[in-house]
Amino acid sequence: MLFSFEKKFPGMKRLFPKPKEDKMGTKTFEIGPINKEKGEEARNYIDTLTKPPGSLGRLEELAIQLAEIQAAKLPAVTPPGVIVFAADHGVTAEGVSAFPKEVTAQMVANFLHGGAAINVFSRQIGALFKIVDVGVATNIEHDDLIVRKVGSGTANFYKERAMSKEDAEKAINIGFEQAEGLITKGIKCLIVGEMGIGNTTSSSAILAAVTGGNLSALIGCGTGIPPEKLSHKQQIIAHALENLKPDPKDPIDILSKVGGFEIAAMAGSMIAAAQHRIPILVDGFICTMSAILADMLANGCRDYMIIGHESVEPGHLAAIEWLGKRPLLKLDMRLGEGSGAAIAFPILQSAALMINEMATFATAGISGNEKS
Amino acid sequence: MLFSFEKKFPGMKRLFPKPKEDKMGTKTFEIGPINKEKGEEARNYIDTLTKPPGSLGRLEELAIQLAEIQAAKLPAVTPPGVIVFAADHGVTAEGVSAFPKEVTAQMVANFLHGGAAINVFSRQIGALFKIVDVGVATNIEHDDLIVRKVGSGTANFYKERAMSKEDAEKAINIGFEQAEGLITKGIKCLIVGEMGIGNTTSSSAILAAVTGGNLSALIGCGTGIPPEKLSHKQQIIAHALENLKPDPKDPIDILSKVGGFEIAAMAGSMIAAAQHRIPILVDGFICTMSAILADMLANGCRDYMIIGHESVEPGHLAAIEWLGKRPLLKLDMRLGEGSGAAIAFPILQSAALMINEMATFATAGISGNEKS
Repeated sequence: MLFSFEKKFPGMKRLFPKPKEDKMGTKTFEIGPINKEKGEEARNYIDTLTKPPGSLGRLEELAIQLAEIQAAKLPAVTPPGVIVFAADHGVTAEGVSAFPKEVTAQMVANFLHGGAAINVFSRQIGALFKIVDVGVATNIEHDDLIVRKVGSGTANFYKERAMSKEDAEKAINIGFEQAEGLITKGIKCLIVGEMGIGNTTSSSAILAAVTGGNLSALIGCGTGIPPEKLSHKQQIIAHALENLKPDPKDPIDILSKVGGFEIAAMAGSMIAAAQHRIPILVDGFICTMSAILADMLANGCRDYMIIGHESVEPGHLAAIEWLGKRPLLKLDMRLGEGSGAAIAFPILQSAALMINEMATFATAGISGNEKS
Repeated sequence: MLFSFEKKFPGMKRLFPKPKEDKMGTKTFEIGPINKEKGEEARNYIDTLTKPPGSLGRLEELAIQLAEIQAAKLPAVTPPGVIVFAADHGVTAEGVSAFPKEVTAQMVANFLHGGAAINVFSRQIGALFKIVDVGVATNIEHDDLIVRKVGSGTANFYKERAMSKEDAEKAINIGFEQAEGLITKGIKCLIVGEMGIGNTTSSSAILAAVTGGNLSALIGCGTGIPPEKLSHKQQIIAHALENLKPDPKDPIDILSKVGGFEIAAMAGSMIAAAQHRIPILVDGFICTMSAILADMLANGCRDYMIIGHESVEPGHLAAIEWLGKRPLLKLDMRLGEGSGAAIAFPILQSAALMINEMATFATAGISGNEKS
């Protein structure tokens, strides 16, 4: 058993229909239902606050969702936690990315020195921050780097499966434990980000595998390949899907065939957050793939998710809609690292502060609109 | 001369074609041009930061706009300042609003006690905050209330002009001076908000007067009148425009005929901000009417504006497009008070922090995408 699940959550139990065809089986995890009663309490309370009913729009919906997630009429989202998972991708050998593979390790160093976008935005929102190496091809030594390598990058899925099913589960487990670490430290909202040159290609393959959608509509330029490289990238993915035939219903099969270590780890983190009733603020395209996989692994996990932004990657909106969600922001971003989620975090904070701090019509002595 | 303009800004001079038909004349104010060179410096510098070029989307555009406004490659937006102007509207006698007129004064008391939405969001963003009574019908006494009444609410513009031209200029002047007060205290970004039951009706009339647009397309439910009241509101406005015939090219004429004291004051504040190179973060529908009037009074003022959000009021998008802008957020809000701008402020802050704090490819030792 990879997850010491029953020990950690004595009140919950893991669902365990192990598929017969495979030793590891597809794990699914029990997620407690969100608390609709507390959501209703929050909704009624919001209507007593000194503003016309509904006039704060999506902030009100957000506050209600947070109340449902945390099972508390007055939810809180600070401090947030940010975990960036980094890993390399063998498929970069096929020339699918705008940047050379070495950039993964170079950017990890940048994260460690505080100079990347996600560092800046994490400081802005007062987040607890950590960076986890789940499979960077280079060895990086730094006191602040958490090293939990599952491998030295995935295999090239154009030629063979990206990783074993055992490694996929191992990466999920690492993500789960890393999130639990921050939750123990008191974070009230989880943001996960990623760094892995080539991971847009992996994510497009996952999305096509899960949805069966038309590849050409789902594939974009990632962090910035030129348009002429796009059809090459599409051919690489089409060939891999044809060759490996990932089972659209089996997240471990999909991850092991066309996934990435960081994508698996992010999914594991999200499951941990949902089990602890911590709202998950989802970032861009790659992160949303982890969100979909997390929801497949742990039914109901999506109820704990809020989509921070819609990126310019064309598959992102399809993925968001697959989850039945609406993004908070649309700022034409396509960076990853968790940056879009961090930018969206103050909106969640506004929603929580609204319900916690605004006066009611009764306490403020204000005439309601029923009198007009 | 109502504005001691030349004294305050010895380097600038007021443009002064006084229209012959009126003693007060239409004032226009000279606004310095934004600094395109500094914008270009910022753009070039942003392309050296550790992220694929353009991958932070609108954050990059914002940072460049802030650099142009502040004439500084590395702009700053903290601390922001929030001024809420409150005044009453005579047209509420016609039953155009969802709330009784008394709510204006009651909400001012709520602002003074820190319980309104704009209080909560101002605290969240660390804003300097003040509330100015420019014409509430009731007298409110409180140490923190700045009382600069132009009148006890406007006249009912269904029957007569809302105010004299002198009063319109007086209200603009008050707004100008209040903003200068906060600018002297060091604010780096200005948000203005309003409280005035009936001011959506006034704003719709202003928009129709300025744009000549179709009233039925521009008029909405404000903070929440029922749909059956909408055609009544439309008739009131149509009658007023027909009766008073505001000159679409003359902002003082428009303000005096169908405006409000707080709408005029907000316009004055924006002019002061633009003259001091302080970015103006514009709120919702009513605030955007002030923005349009400010730009008519002071050509180029719009270059100093950023639109925080698009509200659900149908005329808002038309007004935003009239200014040639795109809103940052769309969260289905319709509260006013400056609340939507305050919610959007952290995005401006992210843009400024990005350019100030991110590492460059050179300093971080990262391979550029030209190597791939």
